[in-house]
Amino acid sequence: MPRIVVEVMPKPEILDPQGKAIASALPHLGFDAFAGVRQGRRFELTVEGDATDEVLAQARRAAEEMLSNPVIEDVVDVRVEGDA
Amino acid sequence: MPRIVVEVMPKPEILDPQGKAIASALPHLGFDAFAGVRQGRRFELTVEGDATDEVLAQARRAAEEMLSNPVIEDVVDVRVEGDA
Repeated sequence: MPRIVVEVMPKPEILDPQGKAIASALPHLGFDAFAGVRQGRRFELTVEGDATDEVLAQARRAAEEMLSNPVIEDVVDVRVEGDA
Repeated sequence: MPRIVVEVMPKPEILDPQGKAIASALPHLGFDAFAGVRQGRRFELTVEGDATDEVLAQARRAAEEMLSNPVIEDVVDVRVEGDA
């Protein structure tokens, strides 16, 4: 069955305490190449049948209306990704 | 500055109560095309300087050792994604 991947990130102007905590812990573990970390969410929606344009449009609406909080988050990607 | 995206999902055999809750709520809101939902995490690591092979290798190690819990999660993608 095809899968639609939806990715949601905190808006750039929104504080991301989890990302900040990870960013400050990384150098202590020897990871020194990174200037910052942001943490968001990734959803996999399994599609019954084919991932038609209508299904993709429905996934886009679900991403905006249900999977993300539009006040503090951006939907950064909605894509079909092969078989589950 | 370039950005490395790390994506982490619960292992297929691990129960995902948040994904299940979303999956059962979707039809009530008119989204009827989806057979299941899994919820994972997406990280954006901002790189100081260039995203060299060494930096990407460091991101892969950080993904396995710090950003994911290998007992219950899989790192499903680590990729460079343009400028922040």
